[in-house]
Amino acid sequence: MPERIPVVEKILSANDRLALENQARFEVARVFAINIMASPGAGKTSLIEQTVRGLAGRLRVGMINGDIATSYDADRAQAAGATAVQINTGGACHLDAGMVRSALGQLNLADLDLVIVENVGNLVCPADFKLGTHQSLLVASIPEGDDKPYKYPGMYRGVDAVVINKIDLLPYVPFRMDFFKQGIEVLNPGVVQFELSCRTGEGLPAWLDWLERQVQTFKTA
Amino acid sequence: MPERIPVVEKILSANDRLALENQARFEVARVFAINIMASPGAGKTSLIEQTVRGLAGRLRVGMINGDIATSYDADRAQAAGATAVQINTGGACHLDAGMVRSALGQLNLADLDLVIVENVGNLVCPADFKLGTHQSLLVASIPEGDDKPYKYPGMYRGVDAVVINKIDLLPYVPFRMDFFKQGIEVLNPGVVQFELSCRTGEGLPAWLDWLERQVQTFKTA
Repeated sequence: MPERIPVVEKILSANDRLALENQARFEVARVFAINIMASPGAGKTSLIEQTVRGLAGRLRVGMINGDIATSYDADRAQAAGATAVQINTGGACHLDAGMVRSALGQLNLADLDLVIVENVGNLVCPADFKLGTHQSLLVASIPEGDDKPYKYPGMYRGVDAVVINKIDLLPYVPFRMDFFKQGIEVLNPGVVQFELSCRTGEGLPAWLDWLERQVQTFKTA
Repeated sequence: MPERIPVVEKILSANDRLALENQARFEVARVFAINIMASPGAGKTSLIEQTVRGLAGRLRVGMINGDIATSYDADRAQAAGATAVQINTGGACHLDAGMVRSALGQLNLADLDLVIVENVGNLVCPADFKLGTHQSLLVASIPEGDDKPYKYPGMYRGVDAVVINKIDLLPYVPFRMDFFKQGIEVLNPGVVQFELSCRTGEGLPAWLDWLERQVQTFKTA
């Protein structure tokens, strides 16, 4: 009778392997990395601008921006004080680990504490591609409507934190916060949430403090 | 010497063939079909609700709704008076012609003048898949920001008309209408545009009249 050999090797997709390589590079450099996803226009870039400004003097921030076209977002992050690298996806609807790997070649990780990866504006496809970041964040926004968790469950299910942006518009649009949060709770129980407005600055300190804590906890672990 | 045979057959993708079949079904039934695309939360369903109500007594409207999950949008269209068919894409980030073909099996085209297809909320992937509709419409919205044509050129380039929704929010968000429209003009010169608010009703009559004219022109051609 042949000897039985337990086969425990996990078969990883090509993307997952590259994501692990990216993660290893972040680990070696002691850089915390976060992947920010959202619908087009929810406020990813505005949040990144406010985050870079708000953490000035506290953390050294690098930014990898994925867009189908233009470098508008990378330009805005750079103007806010981040070291920014632009990836034009050439039509692709999400970033993948290979694109992030290319961008990492242009960032000096030794000079950074935090790398923010801004994904393509899309509530569907980016959720399926690991990039090698430590955490992922979804930016939702009030004018998108309160039914979005129910309609895009894959995205809401997979993230580590949710920023609810544009709360300054609550008086002007129909939005049931209870209904919205119920949807999140069902898909992703207990996920960290922040309600804020990148425009008015309301609620930003709690987000900035949380993010800084994540980075410091990572660096001292 | 062998005879030279000119090969002019165009190789169509499987999706394009199905799209042509769908279009043939619409043609035979004399039903005008339009594909509505947008970011999540730009207001596709609100526009469809207002369109079904606004055209009541003028046109018989059917609706095919594509969503990753839930039947919320189809329910809303049905409540507004449309015959609605729900497609759950099961995670896919766009409709394709095969999904629309399946939905057509549940609609009695003989009872309809207009079929509105509501695509998955996504500014990238739906642009690449023909469905067999006669026209395609992009719903943009003010709070998404004025840089969207520049950042999602594939979508803006390919549509027959653009509805700019949520103009009631113009006083509350930064939005340079000139910059936005310049972007559209570069990508899609002369494309038909409507500025409106599904919430307040402002600007809706021009959109309804235009759509009715498209349908009537098609039916009498």
